[in-house]
Amino acid sequence: MTTRSDIKKNTPRYLDELNEFLRIPSISTDPAHEQDVKKAAGWLSDQFNALSASAITIHQTAGHPIVTAQFGDDPSKPTVLVYGHYDVQPAGDESLWSSPPFQPEVRDGKIYARGATDDKGQVFTYLKAVELMKEKGDLPCNIRFLIEGSEEVGSKNLPEFIDAHPELLDCDTAIISDTSIIAEDTPSITAGLRGHTRIKLTVKGPSKELHSGVFGGTIANPIEALSKMIATVTDEKGRVAVPGFYDDVRDYTTEERAQINQRGNIDQDVLKETGATALVGEEGYTTVERIGLRPAFTLLSIHAGPEPTNLKGVISPEATAMLAVRTVPNQDPEKIAQMMCGYLKAQAPKGVTVETEISGNSDAWALESFNDAAYLAAAGAYKKVWNKDPVPEYCGGSIPVVAMFKKAGVSTVMMGFGLESDNLHSPDEHISVNRFQKGIEALVNFFQDFPKERTKKSPGLSPT
Amino acid sequence: MTTRSDIKKNTPRYLDELNEFLRIPSISTDPAHEQDVKKAAGWLSDQFNALSASAITIHQTAGHPIVTAQFGDDPSKPTVLVYGHYDVQPAGDESLWSSPPFQPEVRDGKIYARGATDDKGQVFTYLKAVELMKEKGDLPCNIRFLIEGSEEVGSKNLPEFIDAHPELLDCDTAIISDTSIIAEDTPSITAGLRGHTRIKLTVKGPSKELHSGVFGGTIANPIEALSKMIATVTDEKGRVAVPGFYDDVRDYTTEERAQINQRGNIDQDVLKETGATALVGEEGYTTVERIGLRPAFTLLSIHAGPEPTNLKGVISPEATAMLAVRTVPNQDPEKIAQMMCGYLKAQAPKGVTVETEISGNSDAWALESFNDAAYLAAAGAYKKVWNKDPVPEYCGGSIPVVAMFKKAGVSTVMMGFGLESDNLHSPDEHISVNRFQKGIEALVNFFQDFPKERTKKSPGLSPT
Repeated sequence: MTTRSDIKKNTPRYLDELNEFLRIPSISTDPAHEQDVKKAAGWLSDQFNALSASAITIHQTAGHPIVTAQFGDDPSKPTVLVYGHYDVQPAGDESLWSSPPFQPEVRDGKIYARGATDDKGQVFTYLKAVELMKEKGDLPCNIRFLIEGSEEVGSKNLPEFIDAHPELLDCDTAIISDTSIIAEDTPSITAGLRGHTRIKLTVKGPSKELHSGVFGGTIANPIEALSKMIATVTDEKGRVAVPGFYDDVRDYTTEERAQINQRGNIDQDVLKETGATALVGEEGYTTVERIGLRPAFTLLSIHAGPEPTNLKGVISPEATAMLAVRTVPNQDPEKIAQMMCGYLKAQAPKGVTVETEISGNSDAWALESFNDAAYLAAAGAYKKVWNKDPVPEYCGGSIPVVAMFKKAGVSTVMMGFGLESDNLHSPDEHISVNRFQKGIEALVNFFQDFPKERTKKSPGLSPT
Repeated sequence: MTTRSDIKKNTPRYLDELNEFLRIPSISTDPAHEQDVKKAAGWLSDQFNALSASAITIHQTAGHPIVTAQFGDDPSKPTVLVYGHYDVQPAGDESLWSSPPFQPEVRDGKIYARGATDDKGQVFTYLKAVELMKEKGDLPCNIRFLIEGSEEVGSKNLPEFIDAHPELLDCDTAIISDTSIIAEDTPSITAGLRGHTRIKLTVKGPSKELHSGVFGGTIANPIEALSKMIATVTDEKGRVAVPGFYDDVRDYTTEERAQINQRGNIDQDVLKETGATALVGEEGYTTVERIGLRPAFTLLSIHAGPEPTNLKGVISPEATAMLAVRTVPNQDPEKIAQMMCGYLKAQAPKGVTVETEISGNSDAWALESFNDAAYLAAAGAYKKVWNKDPVPEYCGGSIPVVAMFKKAGVSTVMMGFGLESDNLHSPDEHISVNRFQKGIEALVNFFQDFPKERTKKSPGLSPT
């Protein structure tokens, strides 16, 4: 039987297994789900055990556990490091889901559940690819897994873990399936990722809640001060108005911009996908460029004052906002965050004090060469399954681990099977059964086509 | 025995009784406390019964109950209508209270509890004044009580109730103790109140939460749009920038301003009371004027995006703010609110839609004449107890009922015993035992000194 027909035949069983994984609410952002996160790590460890992996380890960290396992240890074969994450985003408002987020359901050929595409569903395709290859004989390469539980909280314990375990990074390439292809029938390979930094901004005024009548008009209102400060961050041209913000952003040549815009005009797709009434953004750039090449400021939240259902008439003592910046290669997230904090503080009106707290820094990343062996193997693998050459894609999101691996001397290929319309981070997250099946098949192809000789003799054993 | 020594002797019993009232968490803004609000209405009704009032009625309304009762019905005597409220503000963050908000405690000569000053404590002084007068003989005037349970939600069912019960407004004056005097040892009588209007502003963008990386920089962010819109409401001179906002505000003469500023410079008091690091506000006005004569914009709350502890990286579909304006006499709150809504909508950037909802309108009020019989009786009553003439005070808060009574042809005297530093609406609300005792005594004096003849033959029987 062909790999494709095996996958088709086994799909009902695959979905039953995947559903077990999806039913665990391993929400890493919420301390109340700590035990669920551990449970998901344990579930993975059991799966590796069932597949007779060696060196299965659940590593405890200061955050959530990291699970590692190894298939094959033949020094004459290349080693591929599979990275993924078993943690998920919170469900958000469950009333907005068509079926409960942690009770997976297949409807219209799609698997609906939190984590279906980001990233449990995609991690699971590797388990089935390994299973299939093992059933047919020996593995064509050594495959090592490193699956973490803190990706949705910025992979914050990963750098330390990587530093402590250089042997795990002794590999010829890393591979990650945590990104999207550009359409159900058009594969793509991520060639760039934005970086990230986050600022918690707190503005403080009076020492307690005050009657808004008795004191209204006489003292600075922290909520209003916060709004005014934040309002100055961007200008009417959609640019960040903070002086120096764009200094380290490189200019792209006309040729490079043409290559990036190969993907075509995606305006209608973005409008449809987001439900927005208009596209806005930095003047002079296409939507593809705004997402892939240009940094972006996002105001994530403001929380201040009584809830809207509480008609308390007060001036509140403080207001808090979370701000994020998606950075691009060559921008240092820490430097950008410090610059933003300094700017915001300078905007503070009289009568308030300002506190800032920076977190979630991760570097942006871009592919160095389209001749990378893993990139070529991935491109071939996609073509065999989709009958189409994949196009390079510059993704607006951040996968901190890619820059971390690069720092440690390991290059990464991003072989995603998601779609931007899969509602990752939103209600009704899903992945199509079709892409799930194609993903497994493409991975088998990738492992078989990856150069039989080690591509790299001296891997990143000394990360800096 | 004198009234004063009676009050002193009875204070332990008075406090026990008041504590029963204060222990009921009659929070009108919170539907979860609906039964507690009813319980407080019942407690009042029981008190009136114990004092042998006639016509004790708990009126159900579309909101919370209104309790009315009558002492005396002699057509040859004048009738005083006592208005107050038995509902309280929410406690807010209970961890900020030194003792639990609904477990009254006397410390350092102060009674601490939510409602101690606003307005249960002050309502209770009337019950004790009536009790004392009844013990000593006949009441000098007819006294009618109208105590409502929805003041903290804007007295929204009161206009309808007043329309339906014109007989309750057949009186010579209304009296209210729900305001402050300017210092523990300096009495004052409220001569002006600001009005109020509230706008709920909702800005909507994408149809769902979106990944802030995948879409950051391409669509309008409702939270950012909201901040930018709100930031334009006031200018750098502390004035409301909405065109037409000040059109109906009357100019005060130099003499009037001098009279108002009789109260003196209160800047140090306000700084101390609020804990603010600086005073801000409309240029060209003193703090007393900013509070008493000038309208003020207050941003009550913004709620948008995940809570700060939830590090979800999303662009949120909507953002909500509550805005309030304290208006001054001659400004129509509804007109001001409509003006604000129109202005805010005009500030909306591309890619978002805006919804507004107006509520809580109440008119501002100012005393018409310092020769008002009730005002003179109140001034005399304060002087006897405090040994000082009370000064007229222009209060920044709103007591919607005063304007409602005025519309119905009934003038009101505001004989408050609170202090602005009593933390009404804040943690550790309190009233001093001293003011509580003086309040009872002053009320006895007021009722005795109020003209023995009816001051008014044709009261407001036909409210419009």
